[in-house]
Amino acid sequence: MIKGMLRVGINGYGTIGRRVAHAVSLQDDMTVSGIVKTKPDYVARLASKYYNIYVPKESDVKAFEDAGIKVKGDLSKLIEDSELIVDSTPEGMGEKNIVTYKERKIPAVFQGGEEHKIVEASFNSYSNFDQAIGKKYVRVVSCNTTALARTITPIHEMVGVRRVNATLIRRATDQNDSSKGPINAVEPSLKFPSHHAPDLKTVLPIKEVETVAIKVPTTLMHVHVIELNLEKEAKANQIIDAWKSKRRIAVISGKDGRSSTAQVMDMAREVDRDRSDLYEIPIWKESVFVSGNTLRYIQAVHQESDVVPENIDAIRSMMQILPKEESIEKTDRYMEINGSAF
Amino acid sequence: MIKGMLRVGINGYGTIGRRVAHAVSLQDDMTVSGIVKTKPDYVARLASKYYNIYVPKESDVKAFEDAGIKVKGDLSKLIEDSELIVDSTPEGMGEKNIVTYKERKIPAVFQGGEEHKIVEASFNSYSNFDQAIGKKYVRVVSCNTTALARTITPIHEMVGVRRVNATLIRRATDQNDSSKGPINAVEPSLKFPSHHAPDLKTVLPIKEVETVAIKVPTTLMHVHVIELNLEKEAKANQIIDAWKSKRRIAVISGKDGRSSTAQVMDMAREVDRDRSDLYEIPIWKESVFVSGNTLRYIQAVHQESDVVPENIDAIRSMMQILPKEESIEKTDRYMEINGSAF
Repeated sequence: MIKGMLRVGINGYGTIGRRVAHAVSLQDDMTVSGIVKTKPDYVARLASKYYNIYVPKESDVKAFEDAGIKVKGDLSKLIEDSELIVDSTPEGMGEKNIVTYKERKIPAVFQGGEEHKIVEASFNSYSNFDQAIGKKYVRVVSCNTTALARTITPIHEMVGVRRVNATLIRRATDQNDSSKGPINAVEPSLKFPSHHAPDLKTVLPIKEVETVAIKVPTTLMHVHVIELNLEKEAKANQIIDAWKSKRRIAVISGKDGRSSTAQVMDMAREVDRDRSDLYEIPIWKESVFVSGNTLRYIQAVHQESDVVPENIDAIRSMMQILPKEESIEKTDRYMEINGSAF
Repeated sequence: MIKGMLRVGINGYGTIGRRVAHAVSLQDDMTVSGIVKTKPDYVARLASKYYNIYVPKESDVKAFEDAGIKVKGDLSKLIEDSELIVDSTPEGMGEKNIVTYKERKIPAVFQGGEEHKIVEASFNSYSNFDQAIGKKYVRVVSCNTTALARTITPIHEMVGVRRVNATLIRRATDQNDSSKGPINAVEPSLKFPSHHAPDLKTVLPIKEVETVAIKVPTTLMHVHVIELNLEKEAKANQIIDAWKSKRRIAVISGKDGRSSTAQVMDMAREVDRDRSDLYEIPIWKESVFVSGNTLRYIQAVHQESDVVPENIDAIRSMMQILPKEESIEKTDRYMEINGSAF
């Protein structure tokens, strides 16, 4: 443990938790005190090579020891060993866990599966970094909302966005899950708007937001078809330049072979990313279409990883370690985030 | 270019070529002189960060230069700049290319898409390393045949295998391909046996081999259901120990969460493999069943990467750089191949 580094405990080592742990370990101002795993499975065993392993309750220790995995303690001990918790437990569990964190007076970052009302601020690095400054309980919005906020913010800052209308074509489940579907059906969300519209409003002050979500049989990425109604007219090349100025956005072309999410994720494999992840939000250049005050474009979202840099920035904002631009720059540098590299 | 390192040119930078290039670059006795790409796509652009780029013919140079990718020369120039070619062009093209290699008197390694009859020896590291010693034209058998040879050989060496009967449940296409199917059908090979049976006989002296191949809608891995008729009886734990003694085989358990190819490939992502690849052949411990002289087991095959270490060993055998065990050990060390790590 290097002196002066913030000790971050990771409660929940699923799709997001494992990636946040890795991202924390790359930074020079924070370190992973430990991770909480509920089951002594292969993920726990492989994680024990890199991190201290904790379990939810003392009674869970035996199962881990039977599986040959050394346990450092329970969640209570992890809280003692940490200065901040990243809660990446399954949807809805954060609402229960926050009671414990408050009792123990430890700050915590939650994920998009939790409700906005349980925290002091919802968070997106580009949209509202400053709203989390000094807060103890902050929630990083979901992968889809993060992607919307990330690509809409630069346009909102440039010309103002009056209305958002987005169709989200969602992946069925993550790559390492073989139990969920659909595997041969298209499944619309039967709630209008989908939860993404109110979620986006928690981080971006745009009044009119419409979203609809459609689940399809793939595991690689989500795809968003977005229509923005702009306050002022802008040209397509101005829009594209605004995106290109952001490292967490990658303006790509379908013409050089990247015509689907299959090739977009392949490109992440080609540059030796951790877990073959793609942190940046790719926008297809060919899809950018401006007509009067209307902007349309199509983007993709690597649902497993796009929120990871936001978790790091949320920590720095809450703990007042660095201001917005410096935090984003540092996160990107250590995670090698650079949309223009693609 | 470090002195004394064998200069290996990679003709064809698709699924296999890009991985062989990476594996060559990790070794201390060979180096990548360059790679041939046919299209100036995103893969070519990203590859140009690591390798010298060549094109098939002089007339292809312009398209690359228009795309901003620097070209070192054509295939003829790559042959001049290399001491050995790994031909990883699409199926059937090797048969045309070998004419050029022979004219230019340069040795070449081919992939499983080519026919056995065009080369002097087909190759699998465990089965017949020595048959390639000093040969100029050698073919690494396909991903499926490599997996069969790799897990059958230790059993054949221990007790003798009289008959092989394997059902290959094949992935539809690779992860980065969005044009092929099936996406909602199960497609049996209509040739009995499938080409894998004669292919296995090119590397392993077993007379009776039956294989059948069934294509299913997935991109992650193939799965093999194998039945071996043994010359002598053996116990399940002896069989498992024989596999465990080989680094390129991983005996895994479904009990700790790895019940499908989704979790098996996830485990490769968890250990920071290049491109999230899995070079080892995983065998599910729970599937190993012995009854009299019959052994049954189920294994999976990461079709994109399992043949990569064999390409490296084939080079060392042909060029007489190292004998069998030393080559395999070195390849495994630099590629961090170690089935027992899972």
